[in-house]
Amino acid sequence: MMKVIVDLAIVPIGVGVSLSKYVAACERVLTEAGLQPQLHANGTNVEGDWEVVFAALKRCHEILHEMGVPRISTNIRLGTRVDRIQSMQDKIISVEAQLGLE
Amino acid sequence: MMKVIVDLAIVPIGVGVSLSKYVAACERVLTEAGLQPQLHANGTNVEGDWEVVFAALKRCHEILHEMGVPRISTNIRLGTRVDRIQSMQDKIISVEAQLGLE
Amino acid sequence: MMKVIVDLAIVPIGVGVSLSKYVAACERVLTEAGLQPQLHANGTNVEGDWEVVFAALKRCHEILHEMGVPRISTNIRLGTRVDRIQSMQDKIISVEAQLGLE
Amino acid sequence: MMKVIVDLAIVPIGVGVSLSKYVAACERVLTEAGLQPQLHANGTNVEGDWEVVFAALKRCHEILHEMGVPRISTNIRLGTRVDRIQSMQDKIISVEAQLGLE
Repeated sequence: MMKVIVDLAIVPIGVGVSLSKYVAACERVLTEAGLQPQLHANGTNVEGDWEVVFAALKRCHEILHEMGVPRISTNIRLGTRVDRIQSMQDKIISVEAQLGLE
Repeated sequence: MMKVIVDLAIVPIGVGVSLSKYVAACERVLTEAGLQPQLHANGTNVEGDWEVVFAALKRCHEILHEMGVPRISTNIRLGTRVDRIQSMQDKIISVEAQLGLE
Repeated sequence: MMKVIVDLAIVPIGVGVSLSKYVAACERVLTEAGLQPQLHANGTNVEGDWEVVFAALKRCHEILHEMGVPRISTNIRLGTRVDRIQSMQDKIISVEAQLGLE
Repeated sequence: MMKVIVDLAIVPIGVGVSLSKYVAACERVLTEAGLQPQLHANGTNVEGDWEVVFAALKRCHEILHEMGVPRISTNIRLGTRVDRIQSMQDKIISVEAQLGLE
C-alpha cells in the first residue's frame, strides 16, 4: 500500500461559469469512497491509499461526464513520502509551528 | 485593477525533506504584503490585486533563495473572472450550498 | 475505457538539485507501459487509457522511492473529453491553425 | 533580475469546449512580449525575466477577458534557481543524456 496526499482541482469545460454543482458531485464521490475530503477555495484535499484515491478521482470524471460535462481539465498535486508517516493535518501543524516561532 | 484568487504551492529543492520553514517564510511575506493567506494541506490561498499578489510571490522566491534554497519549483492555480465579484469564501459557500441541497 | 491526456511534472525532494536521473527513470517506466511520453521543458505529456496511464504513474513513484527518493511532489494536468476524440497532436495542430489564421 | 522558466496552461471557462483560439491569442501576447513560447500538448513553456514573463501572463488574462471570456482558470509551473544558469533546452538535454546512458 502506498499512501498519497492529493489536492484536486477539477474544472468542467463547456457547461458555463457556475461550477459548484460539479465540485459538490465530486465531493460526494470522494466521501462515498471512504475518504474525508477537505474543501478549500481552490481545490479539495484528500489523503489515503493510492488505489482508493485514484479510483475515486476516475469516478469523479465519469460522474461529471454523466452529468453532461463534455470536457474536464483537472489539476492535481500529489505527494508521497517513505521517510516518515505524515498526515495532511501534520503538514499544517508543521508550518503553524514555524510561524509560532517568530 | 484585476483581482485574482491564487493557490500557491512552493517546493524548495536541494534543502532536504523538511520544508515547513520555507512555507512559513512565504506566509510571512504574503501577510506583510497585506494579504490574508489561508494555509491548507497542499498550498496557500490568497486573493487580491494582481500586482500585489504577484509582487509577493516574487518576494517569496527571493526570500527563499536568500535563505539558501538553490532551486524552487512552484505550482500556482490562478483564477480571474469579470462576470461577477467572487471571494474565496464565496467559492466555498457555493459548493457547501450544493452539498446541503442533497 | 476512458482516454486521458496527462502532463506529469515529478519533483523528487531530498536528493539535491539534479533531478534529470529521476525524470529519465519515469520516462522509461512510461515507455515500458506502452505509452509514448513526450518530454518537454517542464514535464512529460502522455495519452492513453486511464488505467494504463495511472498505473504507470504509480510505478514512477514506486521506482523513484526504490532509487532512494524519500519524498516526491508531483503536479499533474489531466484532461478527459467525451464530445469528440482528440489526440495530443490534434491539440497542438488546433492552436497552430489559429496562429496561421492571423 | 530573476530569471524564470514557466509552463502556462490557461483554461477559459464559459466559452464552450473549443479553446484553441484563446490559447493562440496568449501565444501572440507572449511573442509580442519578446518571449519565445514553446507550445506543447498541455501548455506553453516560456523563459525570461520574471517581470517580463508575468507582465505577459497578466496581459493574456486581460486579452482573453476582452475577447469575451468571463472566467479563466490558469495553472502555472514556475521554476527559479540560483545555483546555476539553466535554459529550457538544457533541462531537456539533461534528461535525454540520462536516457542515452542506459
